[in-house]
Amino acid sequence: MNTALILRTLGLVLLCEAGAMLPSLGIALFLNEADYMAFAISIFFVVIIGFTLARTRIESSEVGYREGFIIATAGWLFLALFGAFPFIISGAIPGFIDAFFETMSGFTTTGASVLTDIESLSRSILFWRSITHWLGGMGIIVLTLALIPSLKIAGMKLFRAEVPGPAKSKVLPRVAQTSRVLYKLYLMITVAEVLALKIAGLSWFDSFIQTFGTVATGGFSNKNASIAAFGNPAVEYIIVFFMFLCGMNFALHFHALRGNFRPLWQDPETRMYTFVTMAAIILICINLITAQGYGIEAAFRHSIFQSVSILTTTGFATADYNQWPAFSQGVLFLLMFIGGCAGSTSGGMKNVRYLILFKNASREITKMIHPKAVIPIRLGKDVIPEELVESVISFFFLYLAILLASTLLITAMGIDLISSISAVAATLGNIGPGFGLVGPATNYAAIPAAGKLLLTLCMLVGRLEIYTVLVVFSARLWRS
Amino acid sequence: MNTALILRTLGLVLLCEAGAMLPSLGIALFLNEADYMAFAISIFFVVIIGFTLARTRIESSEVGYREGFIIATAGWLFLALFGAFPFIISGAIPGFIDAFFETMSGFTTTGASVLTDIESLSRSILFWRSITHWLGGMGIIVLTLALIPSLKIAGMKLFRAEVPGPAKSKVLPRVAQTSRVLYKLYLMITVAEVLALKIAGLSWFDSFIQTFGTVATGGFSNKNASIAAFGNPAVEYIIVFFMFLCGMNFALHFHALRGNFRPLWQDPETRMYTFVTMAAIILICINLITAQGYGIEAAFRHSIFQSVSILTTTGFATADYNQWPAFSQGVLFLLMFIGGCAGSTSGGMKNVRYLILFKNASREITKMIHPKAVIPIRLGKDVIPEELVESVISFFFLYLAILLASTLLITAMGIDLISSISAVAATLGNIGPGFGLVGPATNYAAIPAAGKLLLTLCMLVGRLEIYTVLVVFSARLWRS
Repeated sequence: MNTALILRTLGLVLLCEAGAMLPSLGIALFLNEADYMAFAISIFFVVIIGFTLARTRIESSEVGYREGFIIATAGWLFLALFGAFPFIISGAIPGFIDAFFETMSGFTTTGASVLTDIESLSRSILFWRSITHWLGGMGIIVLTLALIPSLKIAGMKLFRAEVPGPAKSKVLPRVAQTSRVLYKLYLMITVAEVLALKIAGLSWFDSFIQTFGTVATGGFSNKNASIAAFGNPAVEYIIVFFMFLCGMNFALHFHALRGNFRPLWQDPETRMYTFVTMAAIILICINLITAQGYGIEAAFRHSIFQSVSILTTTGFATADYNQWPAFSQGVLFLLMFIGGCAGSTSGGMKNVRYLILFKNASREITKMIHPKAVIPIRLGKDVIPEELVESVISFFFLYLAILLASTLLITAMGIDLISSISAVAATLGNIGPGFGLVGPATNYAAIPAAGKLLLTLCMLVGRLEIYTVLVVFSARLWRS
Repeated sequence: MNTALILRTLGLVLLCEAGAMLPSLGIALFLNEADYMAFAISIFFVVIIGFTLARTRIESSEVGYREGFIIATAGWLFLALFGAFPFIISGAIPGFIDAFFETMSGFTTTGASVLTDIESLSRSILFWRSITHWLGGMGIIVLTLALIPSLKIAGMKLFRAEVPGPAKSKVLPRVAQTSRVLYKLYLMITVAEVLALKIAGLSWFDSFIQTFGTVATGGFSNKNASIAAFGNPAVEYIIVFFMFLCGMNFALHFHALRGNFRPLWQDPETRMYTFVTMAAIILICINLITAQGYGIEAAFRHSIFQSVSILTTTGFATADYNQWPAFSQGVLFLLMFIGGCAGSTSGGMKNVRYLILFKNASREITKMIHPKAVIPIRLGKDVIPEELVESVISFFFLYLAILLASTLLITAMGIDLISSISAVAATLGNIGPGFGLVGPATNYAAIPAAGKLLLTLCMLVGRLEIYTVLVVFSARLWRS
């Protein structure tokens, strides 16, 4: 185990985090907010610890799978632990568990909140809360990768552990370069959305906050009523567009940006993602009109917003879908388990996994009729290696096993079944709001402390796609 | 396609069904019940149709997988369709869809009922209702197999399609012999339970009815309050014992009966099944005492009864668990997805599948650390072929995909989410009662007709372990 390199990388991650606190410090100073001290103290401590760790002498730059998994898991844990400082010190979220929950929710782009009155917070705190989304969005470790070329060898491995889903088509051969390209793309989309929202009538501050929540498919807003607070259909449609965009594979966006749209159009996952979105919108829209008496425009706008928000695992709300008919709730509940595309900022199980699962199931049926047939599974023109197929179906099982075990633990704390299962689904899938007690009009404040810790772990496990975290908790990793 | 042989076999199945109606006719005549006409007419028609089909001239006794799957699926459909006659003709269940639902529920050993007042039915009708469980229990087609040696070649294939779960260790080399042995075993267990219940104080009639529901892990009772109606702890414990016994692999019972208990003790599935049962009992018992104020004896008795009843997919009730705390409900909900052992009369996904799923997931984690390791999956001393592993995990996915799609369709009929998902889980898993609207104190009468048809299909799909039915509905089967 190359412990030195792990510690050093974690140190660099913390230094980046301290750097990310600077804009909030600036805002606090500029607006004369009392919270500037919270940021100053936090930055001071994070820099000292980060610097100490980063100075670890490295004897070998050799890095294997183990180190990659540990860096990823510990990296997110560290970010959430130290990122909670400003909340605790400023008194915005005085309890440690609450602050840890909120910060993990930010960095994992979940968007689940324990805050009952978001609007009472200072702007600098709100900015910090939302920028954790943005940083988490493309993975702060991908960022670290792009910045520190000495990690290049570990690159591919780290990248595998980090980028959501069975990552496909390498954009550029070298990882550092890849990360940098993706990061630039992310920045461009961010700028585009900020400008669009500003033009639609939001303030610069509101534009930035909603953008951070959108491009990271996170879901933190600075309004108690989420996006509904703006009462601005243009804003809603802009956010829908960018949520949908950021639920797609960024590697395909990269090609599209270079004028090559074919990989995007022909990608089976993008097609399934688009199909699922369309189907959900149509089903919910019809249901809202017929069963709930919504007008056509409102039904369309709410169904498109809520479908895309849940499917991309963003979690913004323009309506309290807790009040919707059971069928619409059922559709949204299903979307919670699908998620966006691999290589996006979204969470959930990802469409490509379902494609592989469906194709494998279809193959099994063929095999019942032709037992000796050897049938490879294809996605577009690519043959999926059997190892990946097994890994994907195993992922599906683990995802549900963790979901059900955690749900059971939450019900043991006296929370009803629908609230429990949706709270776990919404954190494991990095969505944010669920149903019942943790619906879009409420928050996670009602969950007991032990439950919050469990859900925080679910966010981490979901964000790092289960295996990464399980490997770190596995004795097998530490044995040799 | 050997259509002639399929038709002939279906004819023989119908003749068996007509034979199974004779005891009910006898009861009706003996007790001077008016329903004797319903049985006489039903037997008349079923015999004529069965005889016509059974006379089909067979040109070749060649039988492949296709024929096996079609016989299994069509066999259960025929049984449920024609078995509904006595209910419809007697007026006990006048509507066709309701009667079809109830009969399919019987033959698939589900135990879900549309009847609001079971006790108002005649004894002959009640006997017919329960004997469908008993026949369905070990699979009327296994029975047919043992009776018709000409099907021996198809035996193994049919057997595969029929016997629940990835069937293991052939008890005796030849299928007809195997079936006969299992059938005798089933008969012995039946007789033992009838006697035990009689000694515990039930009437002969009540003993037979509860026994049919138990050994088939079906769940039809002749009392509105299910087993609670007897208010007899001895009866409850006897039923728990036999439910647990019949949730185990009958092949292992066969060895045990010959004095060889080792296969039973050493079987990993039996161990998991026992462990899951114990865990559920302890968790629910503690929860009932602490959160619901149950006395220790009552908590123990209800938790053991309800855990075993749901896990073995029987569905008998001694308490309305709809009123239990969320945690106990969560445990029961989880048990609904596990089920008993392969090679038993129980439904659900079966413990052995979970063992394989867990071992595969654990292997995936090891592979993350040692990517080139080749690790076979073992159950006890046996290495599980990779093909079976893929088939099992694919089964898991299909099971949940069917569950969620059906749930969505039920919610579209205006039923709430918990009632919908548990109705589908309870029919797909051949359990019977679910939660909410379809809880143990209520029934399926409130579900709209289209929903009942869908749930009837779920019972069939679940009983024949998904693949069998999906293969028949697959165009690939009919193409060549």
